[in-house]
Amino acid sequence: MLLGSIEAGGTKFIAAVGDEHMNIIDTVTVPTTKPDETMEQISNFFSRYHLDALGVGSFGPIDVDEKSQTFGYITSTPKSFWRDYNFVGYLKQKLNVPVAWTTDVNAAGYGEYLLGNANGTESCLYLTIGTGIGGGFINKGQILNAFSHPEMGHVFIKRHPDDTFEGICPFHKNCLEGMASGPAVEKRWGKKGVELADQSFVWELEAYYLAQALISYTLILRPERIILGGGLMKQKQIFKLIRNEFHAMLNDYVEVPDLETYIQPVGLNDQAGIIGGLLLAKNKLKG
Amino acid sequence: MLLGSIEAGGTKFIAAVGDEHMNIIDTVTVPTTKPDETMEQISNFFSRYHLDALGVGSFGPIDVDEKSQTFGYITSTPKSFWRDYNFVGYLKQKLNVPVAWTTDVNAAGYGEYLLGNANGTESCLYLTIGTGIGGGFINKGQILNAFSHPEMGHVFIKRHPDDTFEGICPFHKNCLEGMASGPAVEKRWGKKGVELADQSFVWELEAYYLAQALISYTLILRPERIILGGGLMKQKQIFKLIRNEFHAMLNDYVEVPDLETYIQPVGLNDQAGIIGGLLLAKNKLKG
Repeated sequence: MLLGSIEAGGTKFIAAVGDEHMNIIDTVTVPTTKPDETMEQISNFFSRYHLDALGVGSFGPIDVDEKSQTFGYITSTPKSFWRDYNFVGYLKQKLNVPVAWTTDVNAAGYGEYLLGNANGTESCLYLTIGTGIGGGFINKGQILNAFSHPEMGHVFIKRHPDDTFEGICPFHKNCLEGMASGPAVEKRWGKKGVELADQSFVWELEAYYLAQALISYTLILRPERIILGGGLMKQKQIFKLIRNEFHAMLNDYVEVPDLETYIQPVGLNDQAGIIGGLLLAKNKLKG
Repeated sequence: MLLGSIEAGGTKFIAAVGDEHMNIIDTVTVPTTKPDETMEQISNFFSRYHLDALGVGSFGPIDVDEKSQTFGYITSTPKSFWRDYNFVGYLKQKLNVPVAWTTDVNAAGYGEYLLGNANGTESCLYLTIGTGIGGGFINKGQILNAFSHPEMGHVFIKRHPDDTFEGICPFHKNCLEGMASGPAVEKRWGKKGVELADQSFVWELEAYYLAQALISYTLILRPERIILGGGLMKQKQIFKLIRNEFHAMLNDYVEVPDLETYIQPVGLNDQAGIIGGLLLAKNKLKG
């Protein structure tokens, strides 16, 4: 069995071919320019293989409603070349293969759920905290989508009493993404997160905001595990701070697993999205 | 077909017998005292009928994990007589009937989803805003439960710049429930909500907090409809305020249905929980 996977990001696309055991046979990375250019390179890459199915995790927002006329499209993205682009339609036409289609975070979450640090659980919340903040939730094997896919990085949080930063979200100013994304950290402190690794107050404040959001997600979704990925979560010292804040703020209101188990970094590192796409492709063949 | 329903609340239990068309044949209301007393009166009421199935929506927290040793129990409630009480076990022993078991808000949400103001949708978030704040989410016919059931009234929110009220949640002080529940309104203003009906600033502030939470729920769950019940939502003037705040704060970040359609009061009034229990009982016979 040969499976394809695309991790479609705002700056680059990664594509891979693998087998049903998740052995990766070939990969390519292509810059995100215009659909004509980027997608042609991707489809040329895949056309050398006879794929059985393809899984795509894309930047968004995207249309995931199978009953919609625009299912498989990227919709209202600020990247104008990609607005209202029929992503799945192009792939089906070029490659004539079943395509599983979801968001980048859902695909990465699916990878972590089945083969990463949420392996063995029944439900997993995956979050990426980097250029943006986004998340996906998988429960009993199903990715949560209802009216559309989640955009959970923009939840509201309470301000830390010592923090006067106004927030950078162009929509909500001081929502979670506006206060705690990579660009928010850089704007607040004047340096990138990676350059602030030894500044404990930076990570304490970051943990204060992330823990609040994790509590909201916990109370709404009740995941069995939370996996945190993305650039800022490479600062591994933050995990202890997040768990401590989470414990203090939740104040034992609901039962959660032991926090060392409950809140974990990614297990598949930068491969979560690509592996998730392969797993979604494999799953597509089942049903 | 004869179906039973129990709405098990912290101050009273309501039980009803109905048919598969949701015609209610008989009801009883019993004060919530001790399990021995309350449950005996409930089971005596039902024992006059030959029920095919029974649906229960209970105050919580409860154990909804069918694989758990304590499935069907009320668990860590502050009501000490009811702590670790085997609710479903008692009913099965007394009445020998299949029992569907969920939280009070999940049952009411299920009623609204199938026969109330979310009828015809694929996904519905139901919230009660009264003595406490709680919610349930139904998507494609399934009630969302993962590690356990949601407790979504305690999400964090940002403080209104003019509000100095410290909040009354014993766990989190200024979470949504601590700032916007019925007792929070009464503590902040010195009067019950119903006595403040003509004070527009009361409802503007209430809408400011509720709209934030509705945005968080929207971004995480992406429901097709939101139904708001509970005592405070009998102040119908608040719906317009909530929709206005929601529109302003979401700032068109994601697509949602027209807000008149999206955010609605209950359609089944005080019957949502009982009807939901009957529907859950009926559903139990299918699967």
